[in-house]
Amino acid sequence: MKLLTYQYQSSAQKLGVLNNDTIIDLERFGQKNNIDFPDTMLELIDAGPYEVARIQKALADANENTIADCSIPMKEAVILAPIPKPRKNIIGIGLNYTEHVAESARTLDTSKELPQQPVIFSKPPTAVTGTHTDIVLNPKLTQQLDWECELAVVIGKKGKYVKKEDALDYVFGYTVINDISARDCRRAGQWIVSKGQDTFAPMGPVLVTKDEIEDPHNLNLWLTLNGVEKQRSNTKFMLFNINDLIEDLSTVFTLEPGDIIATGTPAGVGAGRNPQEWMWDGDVVEATVEGIGTLINTVRELK
Amino acid sequence: MKLLTYQYQSSAQKLGVLNNDTIIDLERFGQKNNIDFPDTMLELIDAGPYEVARIQKALADANENTIADCSIPMKEAVILAPIPKPRKNIIGIGLNYTEHVAESARTLDTSKELPQQPVIFSKPPTAVTGTHTDIVLNPKLTQQLDWECELAVVIGKKGKYVKKEDALDYVFGYTVINDISARDCRRAGQWIVSKGQDTFAPMGPVLVTKDEIEDPHNLNLWLTLNGVEKQRSNTKFMLFNINDLIEDLSTVFTLEPGDIIATGTPAGVGAGRNPQEWMWDGDVVEATVEGIGTLINTVRELK
Repeated sequence: MKLLTYQYQSSAQKLGVLNNDTIIDLERFGQKNNIDFPDTMLELIDAGPYEVARIQKALADANENTIADCSIPMKEAVILAPIPKPRKNIIGIGLNYTEHVAESARTLDTSKELPQQPVIFSKPPTAVTGTHTDIVLNPKLTQQLDWECELAVVIGKKGKYVKKEDALDYVFGYTVINDISARDCRRAGQWIVSKGQDTFAPMGPVLVTKDEIEDPHNLNLWLTLNGVEKQRSNTKFMLFNINDLIEDLSTVFTLEPGDIIATGTPAGVGAGRNPQEWMWDGDVVEATVEGIGTLINTVRELK
Repeated sequence: MKLLTYQYQSSAQKLGVLNNDTIIDLERFGQKNNIDFPDTMLELIDAGPYEVARIQKALADANENTIADCSIPMKEAVILAPIPKPRKNIIGIGLNYTEHVAESARTLDTSKELPQQPVIFSKPPTAVTGTHTDIVLNPKLTQQLDWECELAVVIGKKGKYVKKEDALDYVFGYTVINDISARDCRRAGQWIVSKGQDTFAPMGPVLVTKDEIEDPHNLNLWLTLNGVEKQRSNTKFMLFNINDLIEDLSTVFTLEPGDIIATGTPAGVGAGRNPQEWMWDGDVVEATVEGIGTLINTVRELK
């Protein structure tokens, strides 16, 4: 299922299922079928795989008219980030594609050696925004606003000391994150000001449950800026794959349902180009991961 | 008021007020007075200063017998962290006392220059633990477990682009954090694995409302390890004081009620000593901030 969080006609946040170019309103669908579905994405994640299966079955059993009656055109909805307010900072992974390690070492302050362990940073919940929203460029803070297209993994159950081979059992699903980075905002080498500013974590447009992604380690991902392709790679080129990351992260932190891991970006960021390229007011950046969707945002300079 | 989160006789988490060596159970006190007080610290913080004043007034108006009837001996309660589960990562400030900048530069990988802007990192909610709990030393991850006694500021209202002179209006109160740091766990210079492991953010024992702290920039703070003093300083020596920090942080992130800022540690950490000293299984570390209290934790090696 492609799940989304949305608003319709100024409603509260609602949980829906994408069905071609319409959204099935799960609350309304539940009412019609006398089933009480979760109201939010985090409630659904907390409820676990049985709840996902229950929704899938109810939708599969429903007739077309019922579905149509509970659907709205996607273009009439405001699509929010799938998890608009995560319960902790997003876990970011840095330097997780070989050629990005090389381009970073050329122009940023990172090593040219491949990391021996995942490089971890965080982005606060206040950085999260949805598709078709603005990325705020504060010119007092940065003149080096950069993009990073990434596959994001959403954790489905609590785990500590998870073994690599069991790691995918802990995954709820996948989404796209554009890990916006102000390269001139690192402080004493720490990345959180660079990567954590409000609106620096566009996420979405949908959260795809894991059953729908045959192999998360074979997904093309790409990014365009004003229609020009800047990044293109495949998740098979991650240095630490999702299994590795979950094993490692769960050794350090207890992973919890709703945790979000942004798995790193491939080469092609603005900082790595010659000459370097940055995003400015009005630029449109589109980040896509195959099988999930495209996240579209516009840069707006703070006046 | 000295507020605390506690459990009594296996109860759910409760919100209480410290009254000498007893805890006033706010739920019970409210019931006796037909007042509905918040159930948790975060609910109280969200409710705002009016709610704090309402509790203060009700307690001031109550007679001794009523108070006694709603009180339990502190030693019979399990004191949890004041905010056991923050809604985002704790915001940590690094290198915020001159001599700590110097000792870090000697032995860690940081610059000997004083930072020009606050150095920011984060510790996830899963790192939070209370007083009288264990700090878990995972010997597969670290052989360099260190201490950092800090004043922590709890934010009381939402703020963006807060001016320095208004900053204290955004403070709810203060607590103590021991910013436990595994010095050998930095990855590509990032500190989150070093500082974010489970149990690496002991916090408490109480949260003191800001009205009770006359000057947060003149508080002695000190730390002992197995009874031997290792750190002693005063918050007046912070490089960036609380006003500076809130102005700067709120330029980067929207601050929200319940946000926690650990304001940095003075000199005397284990990494800065000659020879270096680390914490091991059974060590008892006590971190104190004047006017707040002492946070006592024992190091336990993971078997």
